[in-house]
Amino acid sequence: MGRNIALTIQYDGTRYDGWQRQGNTQKTIQARLEAVLSRMTGEPVELHGSGRTDAGVHAAAQVANFHTSCELDCAEIMRYVNRFLPRDIAVTSVREAGARFHARLSAVRKHYRYRVRTSEVPDVFSRPYVWELGRALDMEAMRRAAEPLLGRHDFAAFCGNRHMKKSTVRTVFDINISEYGGETVIDYFGDGFLYHMVRIMTGTLVEAGLGERDAAGTGDLLASRDRNMAGSLAPAQGLCLMEVMYD
Amino acid sequence: MGRNIALTIQYDGTRYDGWQRQGNTQKTIQARLEAVLSRMTGEPVELHGSGRTDAGVHAAAQVANFHTSCELDCAEIMRYVNRFLPRDIAVTSVREAGARFHARLSAVRKHYRYRVRTSEVPDVFSRPYVWELGRALDMEAMRRAAEPLLGRHDFAAFCGNRHMKKSTVRTVFDINISEYGGETVIDYFGDGFLYHMVRIMTGTLVEAGLGERDAAGTGDLLASRDRNMAGSLAPAQGLCLMEVMYD
Repeated sequence: MGRNIALTIQYDGTRYDGWQRQGNTQKTIQARLEAVLSRMTGEPVELHGSGRTDAGVHAAAQVANFHTSCELDCAEIMRYVNRFLPRDIAVTSVREAGARFHARLSAVRKHYRYRVRTSEVPDVFSRPYVWELGRALDMEAMRRAAEPLLGRHDFAAFCGNRHMKKSTVRTVFDINISEYGGETVIDYFGDGFLYHMVRIMTGTLVEAGLGERDAAGTGDLLASRDRNMAGSLAPAQGLCLMEVMYD
Repeated sequence: MGRNIALTIQYDGTRYDGWQRQGNTQKTIQARLEAVLSRMTGEPVELHGSGRTDAGVHAAAQVANFHTSCELDCAEIMRYVNRFLPRDIAVTSVREAGARFHARLSAVRKHYRYRVRTSEVPDVFSRPYVWELGRALDMEAMRRAAEPLLGRHDFAAFCGNRHMKKSTVRTVFDINISEYGGETVIDYFGDGFLYHMVRIMTGTLVEAGLGERDAAGTGDLLASRDRNMAGSLAPAQGLCLMEVMYD
């Protein structure tokens, strides 16, 4: 197991039960990739992803690594896996990583994008990748509601796991809200995100943008540490893991 | 049948046998739309499309019209049809047209786009909408090869119907070849296109771009009026009808 190989992976999450392997089903991205990599190397492969993505969530650039004694070079690995992966999963880069690199533990920053279609006019090409809200959002209210979320906080109110035993403290570096082609696009940058955190933040910001929630109340909401005070869970299909950054 | 309604229609052609109704199958875009419109109006509806698109070809803005005595306003029609259409077909505008408007006969100009993925790196999100060539193309050779096609010519060499009885003369206003994000994108503008014409032109230009065909030979090829001299038929899935223009 001399080599440590890092992959960048793209997927359309529509058909899958998320990133993480579950039992023997092939309905997860990790299981699909491990099956192809194990066949390629002739040895069992365990992939370490940068983090789980929920069922239905997409990735433009998930990162994962695995240890192997396989002797194929990086270009050969890339060609092999892309030949055998289903059409909605692809490896977009393969590189030799240092022995200590771990896709999850070494990650320092992640970028998630959430796309809300605000136009009433449908768009069949983006449909699998947006929340089809079909109503206008007040961007200024959303920005006001987002502001208290920036920085290092206890995000328990935005954690979908009500029995979380580990720390719910995370740092959000930036939340960028923009409009583009009938969509409101929310870009989240942080050092890591709790289970459902991006989708609960999105549900909360959208409620503020619709005038259904006081945009000035996010600070109190955060302080409450109470999931019941936060907004509803935005649909999985609007979310995409855009980038995982390492030092 | 007092009103003449014009629709702009978007579709992902992947699952369909093309635009044109064929017998009783619901596997065409036209049949799907007519079924919903007939249910809405309570009368049989015949849609006139601006032209056929082949099985697997997409449309960002196909245009079609129909006559009806239905009294719903345009916004109500749009909401109704989009509620009942499958997810890969959508109506993006509905407007009242003059009595003499006919989506095919009144069209003066059409824009088709063909996308060739030249990067070896796959992209799962664009995959259904590109020809995955995975090889670099010489854009200058493609531009030289395209030049003789501009203007009014007999395009018999680029016609997929070998028993075409009507005129094969068409005017190509412009062919624009650009690179964007790992793709070579070819935009065709013309007063109309013969059966398979855009895909045969694309096959021919790609062969020139790969160095498999003399880029200077397109004039002779056009003059030959011989389909066997032209390039192969490019895959349907890379093609999209972008716009139909009217006076």
